[in-house]
Amino acid sequence: MISKNIGIFDSGVGGLTVLREITKLLPNEDIVYFGDTARVPYGSKSRERILEYSFQDAAFLLSHNVKIIVIACNSASSTALQKLQDNLSVPLLGVIEPGALEAVRFSKNKKVGVIGTKATVESHSYTNAVHSLVGNDTSYEVFEKACPLFVPLTEDGWIDHTITHLVAEEYLSPLKEKGIDTLILGCTHYPLIKKTIQRVIGDEVSLVDSSVVVARELVRLLKFHDILNDQRRKGRIECFVSDDPDNFFTMAKLFLGDTKIDINEVSLDLIISQTV
Amino acid sequence: MISKNIGIFDSGVGGLTVLREITKLLPNEDIVYFGDTARVPYGSKSRERILEYSFQDAAFLLSHNVKIIVIACNSASSTALQKLQDNLSVPLLGVIEPGALEAVRFSKNKKVGVIGTKATVESHSYTNAVHSLVGNDTSYEVFEKACPLFVPLTEDGWIDHTITHLVAEEYLSPLKEKGIDTLILGCTHYPLIKKTIQRVIGDEVSLVDSSVVVARELVRLLKFHDILNDQRRKGRIECFVSDDPDNFFTMAKLFLGDTKIDINEVSLDLIISQTV
Repeated sequence: MISKNIGIFDSGVGGLTVLREITKLLPNEDIVYFGDTARVPYGSKSRERILEYSFQDAAFLLSHNVKIIVIACNSASSTALQKLQDNLSVPLLGVIEPGALEAVRFSKNKKVGVIGTKATVESHSYTNAVHSLVGNDTSYEVFEKACPLFVPLTEDGWIDHTITHLVAEEYLSPLKEKGIDTLILGCTHYPLIKKTIQRVIGDEVSLVDSSVVVARELVRLLKFHDILNDQRRKGRIECFVSDDPDNFFTMAKLFLGDTKIDINEVSLDLIISQTV
Repeated sequence: MISKNIGIFDSGVGGLTVLREITKLLPNEDIVYFGDTARVPYGSKSRERILEYSFQDAAFLLSHNVKIIVIACNSASSTALQKLQDNLSVPLLGVIEPGALEAVRFSKNKKVGVIGTKATVESHSYTNAVHSLVGNDTSYEVFEKACPLFVPLTEDGWIDHTITHLVAEEYLSPLKEKGIDTLILGCTHYPLIKKTIQRVIGDEVSLVDSSVVVARELVRLLKFHDILNDQRRKGRIECFVSDDPDNFFTMAKLFLGDTKIDINEVSLDLIISQTV
């Protein structure tokens, strides 16, 4: 019987949308989640800094008996996935490639939009991922747009708020003008305001929710490596945060509803001392 | 001739509003500014974390020959000023007490509003400061309101934007209903959207811009300790940031216009290793 954990890390609470989808498909797996709430957000920081933090986060998860690591953060995935994979012995899964693949599947007119944090958009990771998937087909166009206010709006609970709708109109109108038929939600917070985004961008545009796609890809990977957990009991979800577990608890309710999770605080010094 | 520096620290760029006012009143002083851009923002983090970071920031400034330290960050001032003062040999100046004092001077109906980050508002520092200033006069009322979206709106450059106006209406209407006649801008970013705030709260309400008051208080303190710089040349402004100096440079233009500053990157490891 394999009883190792699935490791997930994110800069804060956003990755809980990914965790939620994973628990739906894999209810019997034990999960260890690390949210780096002492240094959140990553999306506005430099590539060097995001890389450094991601290595520490992954190393922390490795010290918790994980068999696979999901980088449930677009900024960290776009910056650190490849470099981490070169240095770790467990398989890794980021959110970029699965999202890009789904977008290519959905898009008929080959015009794909991507919204995300400043770091994700400036890395052009989704554009590169789409282009490497479609290979010689140069007719694919990817339009990216940073939406830095969506995260604070979501975390402040302004989910169905008129202002969130107006902000979405401001951000999404350039993408609408480009005639995209598919829009990648390139930030783990965005599924929480999916309805608003859909209303503004229009029903004719398919939204790609990375969290759903990543969960499906995780199932495939666990099967491929033959490391699915075969226990019959419900999986345990253990969360670690580097700051303010009370706030994490409040936010977790917004993201997960009544799903039972354990929350522990871990010192930032300990995280910084981790090496892979 | 005294040639020691004035030290200023903030979680990021916000403290530049304070720096700007200081350079207006003290153009010949040399200034060392530290912005902890690798861990920005402080306002959403726990008291323990803000305290830890503030000690490291102050220690870093002390290693740069400073004669006085200005905590140009409301979250850090409200959390760390007293504890830092107990442990440092140089005088310290926070933004809370000067702001509270000015509000007490301005207010005629004794109803004072305070807007700031979550950390500042939850610390009730302004309320406590006002009450300790007015002593036995129990008729003073202080109404606090956290405005977490103002910082991302400002940093995203949405200064005169309709959405910023709408957000301000949402945040400020409860304070307006209370009939305040004075409003403390309890976050160093807010002076940038002062016009919008004034328009929404109404001309009959006096705004207290801490950055202006702190600069005046700094002059008083330097004179009191007899450590004013008597050099004739224009002062040098040297900024250190723990991440992304390019972004700091862009933001500095928004805050300072064409004022000449030097910007250096310093590693977070070095900051973390500092002790007072």
